[in-house]
Parts: sequence; C-alpha cells; structure tokens
Amino acid sequence: VSAQRHSIKEPVVVIGGDAAGMSAAAKIRREQSERPIVVFERSPHTSYSACGIPYYVGGQVEHARDLIARSPETFRQKYHIDARVHHEVMHIDHKQQRVKVRNLEDGDEFWEPYGKLLVATGAVPKRPDVPGSDASGIFGVSTLASGLAVRRHLVQERPHTAVVVGGGYIGLEMAEALVRRGLHVALVERASEVMGTLDRDMGALVSAALRDTGVTLYLEETATGFETTEGRVSAVVTDRRTISADLVVLGLGVRPNTHLADEVDIARGESGALRVSDRLQTSVEGIWAAGDCAESWHLVSRRRVQVALGTVANKHGLVAGTNIAGGDAVFPGIVGTAVSKICQYEVARTGLGEEECRALGIDCAAATIESLTRAGYYPGAGAITVKLVGERGSGRLVGGQIVGIEGAAKRIDVVATALTAGMTVEALINLDLSYAPPFSPVWDPVQIAARRLAKAL
Amino acid sequence: VSAQRHSIKEPVVVIGGDAAGMSAAAKIRREQSERPIVVFERSPHTSYSACGIPYYVGGQVEHARDLIARSPETFRQKYHIDARVHHEVMHIDHKQQRVKVRNLEDGDEFWEPYGKLLVATGAVPKRPDVPGSDASGIFGVSTLASGLAVRRHLVQERPHTAVVVGGGYIGLEMAEALVRRGLHVALVERASEVMGTLDRDMGALVSAALRDTGVTLYLEETATGFETTEGRVSAVVTDRRTISADLVVLGLGVRPNTHLADEVDIARGESGALRVSDRLQTSVEGIWAAGDCAESWHLVSRRRVQVALGTVANKHGLVAGTNIAGGDAVFPGIVGTAVSKICQYEVARTGLGEEECRALGIDCAAATIESLTRAGYYPGAGAITVKLVGERGSGRLVGGQIVGIEGAAKRIDVVATALTAGMTVEALINLDLSYAPPFSPVWDPVQIAARRLAKAL
Repeated sequence: VSAQRHSIKEPVVVIGGDAAGMSAAAKIRREQSERPIVVFERSPHTSYSACGIPYYVGGQVEHARDLIARSPETFRQKYHIDARVHHEVMHIDHKQQRVKVRNLEDGDEFWEPYGKLLVATGAVPKRPDVPGSDASGIFGVSTLASGLAVRRHLVQERPHTAVVVGGGYIGLEMAEALVRRGLHVALVERASEVMGTLDRDMGALVSAALRDTGVTLYLEETATGFETTEGRVSAVVTDRRTISADLVVLGLGVRPNTHLADEVDIARGESGALRVSDRLQTSVEGIWAAGDCAESWHLVSRRRVQVALGTVANKHGLVAGTNIAGGDAVFPGIVGTAVSKICQYEVARTGLGEEECRALGIDCAAATIESLTRAGYYPGAGAITVKLVGERGSGRLVGGQIVGIEGAAKRIDVVATALTAGMTVEALINLDLSYAPPFSPVWDPVQIAARRLAKAL
Repeated sequence: VSAQRHSIKEPVVVIGGDAAGMSAAAKIRREQSERPIVVFERSPHTSYSACGIPYYVGGQVEHARDLIARSPETFRQKYHIDARVHHEVMHIDHKQQRVKVRNLEDGDEFWEPYGKLLVATGAVPKRPDVPGSDASGIFGVSTLASGLAVRRHLVQERPHTAVVVGGGYIGLEMAEALVRRGLHVALVERASEVMGTLDRDMGALVSAALRDTGVTLYLEETATGFETTEGRVSAVVTDRRTISADLVVLGLGVRPNTHLADEVDIARGESGALRVSDRLQTSVEGIWAAGDCAESWHLVSRRRVQVALGTVANKHGLVAGTNIAGGDAVFPGIVGTAVSKICQYEVARTGLGEEECRALGIDCAAATIESLTRAGYYPGAGAITVKLVGERGSGRLVGGQIVGIEGAAKRIDVVATALTAGMTVEALINLDLSYAPPFSPVWDPVQIAARRLAKAL
C-alpha cells in the first residue's frame, strides 16, 4: 500500500493509443484518480476497432466514427487522461526516464518525463520487399487511417480490379469487402490453401467458400513485384503471371513494432516481439509492454508467441494497467483462438493444429466430422465441419478448428475453455453442453468430433 | 476380456426405446455384434426428438417423421436390435431374470428372459390432481404420440383459445407454438415469473418477451380445476379467475417413471429418480438405469438430481451401453445446463442460480450485465443479458444465466465448460475466447459479466 501511495504522483507515459494502451490507461485511472497519465498516439485515432475495418470498407459499417470506442476528447474529459493523437514518440531515454515526442501536426519536438512507461506500439503490416511496393494504390490495413484511405480510394479512383496479396483472415475479409463493392477480386497466396492458421484440409473448405463468392484464387504463387503507371499500381506480378490491379491490399500479416524498445535494449523473444513477464513487465525495470508488440505465453504449446489480436491486447492492457497502478494481476496466457466470417461461412480455430503439432514434435491424432448447426429437422440447420486434435498417450485435447454456416464458429469457445482447463478429449464428450433444436443437434458437433477422436487416440 | 466373452450371449433387455434406451442398445451392438438385444417401447415410436415436439405443433417442422432419428425397422435391419414398439413391460421378475410384456396391439402377454436389464422408462408429465384434469383437450407433451395428438386436435377441433398451465421451458415453447397457430394463448404460472429454472430477475425478461408475443400471463396463480362440457375441457379455473380454453397444455414438468423399478426395490434417491452409480448401475445387481428415470451427480451442488433432458439421456445411454457390453465407462455428472428459444429470445442457464445457492447455503455473489451479441457497429447486433454467480471465499464460478437475441444463448456452453473444470471467476476473465465483429464485442459478454462479478466477490 505504501508503494502504491508513493507511486500515485509518478507520471505514466503510454506509447500507443489503441486497445492495449488505452485499456491500460483507463484501468490505471479507475484505480488511481490522481495519477498523471499521458498517451501518445501517432495516428489521429484512439481506441478504434481495427477488426472492424473490413466492414467499413465493405460498407456494412457506414461511418468510420462507428469504429471508434472512445475518442481522445472522451479520454480527456471523462477519464482525465491526456491522450494526444498526431504525436509520435521518437526516442526513449530510460536513463533520464523521459521520451522524446514529435507533434506531427506542427513538427515540434519535446521531452516528456515518466515514472513508468508502457510500450503499446502495436504491429505494422509486413510489406513485401519487391519492386513497386511503395506505389500508390497499395494498402496495408492495420490502422483506421489505412481503412479510411482504402475507402477514399474506392470512392475517388473507382477501381475495377483488386488483388489481395496474402490469404490470412484480414486478406480474406478484405477480399470479401471488395467483392461487395463490386470489384473483380483476385487473391494471391503462397501456400496451397488460404487461412494458414488452419490445417490444410480445413483451409480447403475456406478456399472453396471464397471461390463461391467470386474471388479468383492464385494459390501456391508468390507476389514478386508490382507494375506501376505514373507511380500508381497497375498490376501484381507473381512467379507465374501478371494480374491487373487498380487496387492492392496487403494481407501478409504484421510484425511487432519494436524499434523504440530496441533502442533501450528491451529483450525480445524468438517471436520478435518484446519479452514480458506474466505481469507484462519487460526486461527493463519500470518499462511495461502490452498488445501486439509483446509476447504471450501459449498454454498449449508452452512457448512464447506473438499474437496480434484485439482480445489479447485488451487483456494485456488490463493486466499491465493494474500492475502499473500498484496492483497485482497476472496474464496466464493464450490458447491461440481466432474467428472470422468469410461471406456466409464462419471460420474458427484454437490451440494447435495437426501441422503445428508435427512441427512441435507432439504425437497427435485428429478427427474431422461433418454435422449440422441445428437439429436436422429445424429450419435453418446448416453444415458445420469440426476438426479436433488430441495428444496420444495423455489423451489431452490440443486444438480445434471449425468451418460452417451461421452459428458454427462460436462453438470454438468451448474448445478454448477446455484447452485452458487442460481437459482430455474424453472429458469433452461428457460436457453438459446446451441443447435445443434451434441451437444444436442433441450431441453438439464439438462432442461428436470428440467421440470420433477418442477412438483414434 | 473373459468376462466380456462370457457375457456375449447373455441377452440384454431394454425397457424404453427413446434416447437413453436406444443409445445404450446401439452402443452395445457396436461393441458386441452377436449379443441378443431386445427393446420394449410402449409407444409407436423409437428414438424421436421429444424436444422437437413444440416445433411440430407450431408448424416449423412439417412431418412428425422428421423428428424420428431411427425407426424400429432401422434398428432391426441396420443394428439387428429387436426393437418392439406397442410393447409395454408390466412387471420385472428379477429372481428369474425375466420381464412380463404386454403387446398393446393384441393384448397378448409373455415373459422375456434377460441377462442384463436396462431401465430407461423416462418420465411422465405431472398432472394436477384437480377436478376435470382427465377431460379431453388436455394434453401433456412428453411423447411424440402426445405431440401428434395436439396437432390432430388443432386440425380437427379448430380451437380458438388455449391455456398453458406451467411456465417451464416446455410450457413456453408450446405457448409460442400455439400463438403461431393463431390461437389466443394464456399461460398460468404459480411463481412470480415464468422459467423457474432462472433467478427471478432473469425470468422477468422472459415473461416480458412472452407478453410481447401476445401471450397473456397469469402469474402467481394456481390452476385449481378444469371446466368441461360433454367430457371436453372448456375452461381453466385458477384461484383468481376462470379462463376459457378449447385446448389445454400441461407444462408442469415431469416425474421419473419408476413404478416398475419400485417393484424390485431398486433404490430411489431424494429426487424420486433411481439411484445409480457413476457407471449407471442401480442398487440391484444386473439392472442398470439411464435417462429421465435415473439420477445424475450435479458437479456444482455436489448432490444427486434428476434431469429430464435428451443430452443427459444420450450420455447415460452411451455409458450404460458401454458397461453392459463389458467395457468401463463413467458418467462424471452434469452441471444443469439448459437452453430454449422463446420467440426471438434465447434463454439459457447452467450451474446454480442465486436463489438455488441460498437454498443450498452457498455464500454467493451475482453480477448481471447488459451487452451486445456482436460489435455495436456490426449489423444485427442485439441485446444480451448475462448473469453470473460466484462463491465468496473460494472465488469459484457456480452458475450463469443468459437471455438475449440470436447468438446469445450458446455462450452458456463456455460457462458450463468452466463449471465442469471448477474454474474461478477470475479465470473466466482471462479465457482466450474468440472475437470478431460479427460474433461478439471484443470482451465477450460472459467475460464482461465475470469482470463485474470479480469485483463483487
């Protein structure tokens, strides 16, 4: 308590004003009403839903402001948090406990002192290091600003053709959004199926769904360059063909944004992200890290990984904020859950896939079943495919993947909860899951898969 | 193995041909291809979905045959199981290991010998012991035959008014079905809100939803009799009024059907259902019980309870069948999960409510939150209310209840899984649940409730 009292006037500086940074700032404020908190965010926006960008581009969400949970004004007025957008932190001077900040609007630079520092710098889209990749008309979509830029491009340039490079979930969601906008959309993916976070057999279901929507897939192809006309992209060149493109979206994933942290020798893990304790402390006393730039403990693989998801960033922020405010919170880790909606299909995964198990040397068995989202006789019942993976010997559940129509994907949460609890496949069979005809067959598809898997283990 | 070899010709008799009985019979057949298996079912149907009856009555399901998973012919031809419908077991003679059976079609009676006996006699609707309760036009709805009778009554008698007596989930589902059929529907319930398996505050949301559908609710009223005209029901009399009714549906719950078992002194528990071991053995060697007539261990209250649900019956059947076939399976227990759809509302519960905790002497706290089923900006986002209950001191989660629009209820499965794993409320907050805007806010409503509850504990 005395340590907490002592720290109450010690200023907190947060670098990065999205999910992790603002969750932490808000948590500190709830715990310590007087503590000075300054947040620097280089973009014009705080606390927005990056996951909502494809729906803004696709038009299901009309206004970009709808994606903003809380504006800088809200933080200032309701939380008394000094949230400064258009402000980029250039340098951390940890000896003197201060950061150098540039006001991007007027170019002014100044030093801001801190007692505790939270690095919540997020991640940046990977850009292929190939000719033409800096042409106009090529967009990454990790910030709200980039989402605005894509939609502006759609309105002002009226592109007819688009190419998405990379078939991860952001690439797929953007491909769907552009189809909705009436463009001819092609997608280039290096692997043999889209959605590399799924095993190949499940990814194939998503590839098929995408083709049904009208997206032309070029699988097992790599983008090797971009053709440009007067500085604008006009085509994507792959190792096998040239695909004309008035608009290109990069969906190659992200890398943690750690250059500031590197300057002060904050340790990084094998993932490339900042190494943190389960209390979200970095290797440097007084500096914390949270969100896409920080590692998480994977409870199933028992390794440190980097996950760039809003759910994790929010939890990181809450834990880091609690601890910076003098409390004691622990982030136990993640199990690798993700979900996406691609056209009418829902796609979800958690834990480890068969291919990941093989890479990690885990002796596993898998079972895949097809079932229905509702009782077969109930209107609207539709296909769901569930794959579960278990460890031989221990019988422990290690992962699950789901592809299906509406109502399918949220079932992954049962698998995620079971993974967190370290359940066996056998235990899954006996779970007392809810059933009524509008919701499920009498054996939930997850349990049907568990029954099949138990035999294979 | 030798015991299994020995038993392979020993005949199995199953009393009751729905979920528990036929699951067991099918499991035995999968394990022992030669074992003689006879099933006696007094109704004309095997393996039907009793839970689907309201949708057949309401017309969403056109044909009663759609509710039948497997017919007696299928069992005979594909499983070589001698499934005899219209056959009622009258008596168990355990000394001579035989049952007396009546063929309900021709009145013939005969003895059938068994090596092992499975009692899967289900449950029967409670009937109020009041004048007129045997009039025509009054229906319980626990069997497919009774569902057929209700729909026949609708077509032939063209009733205008209906009264449902009892506001449990079957009563509510039937009330909705009758509204769909264009009837004026009233519902009489003794408690102050419908859905007594929910706490009163959550039940109030369901009462409101039911009124929105046009059902007239008479709460805190008790049916004291039925007025009849020429043997037909014409009105329901309560302690406060008389409500005219061309059709009455009883939704007063069910009681385990144990009269046969009572004859041979199979022990019953406090619930009134048959006491079974976790291998589903009764107190009498060689006799097993499964489904609505048997007890289950409640993993949260740590008491034996009777649950009349298809999910539990199927699991009971699988475990009993495995063991009768010489295997070794255990049914660990239930957590009290149930779900229902009432008009556009989804209603779910698991574990213990606040009121149940009080009755059991568990010192609990509860938190109720309102949130959305999807990200606020995503089309179709709608209201969801989540209530969680936790135990003071231990911090352990003890129950959850959900009322909301489409996409709300299946979230109860996360709570059920967490209860089974014995998780704390704190652990729920950190679960790696799936998030994308079409599926959830970034904090799943269950986790928002857990955050609120953690503060109250």
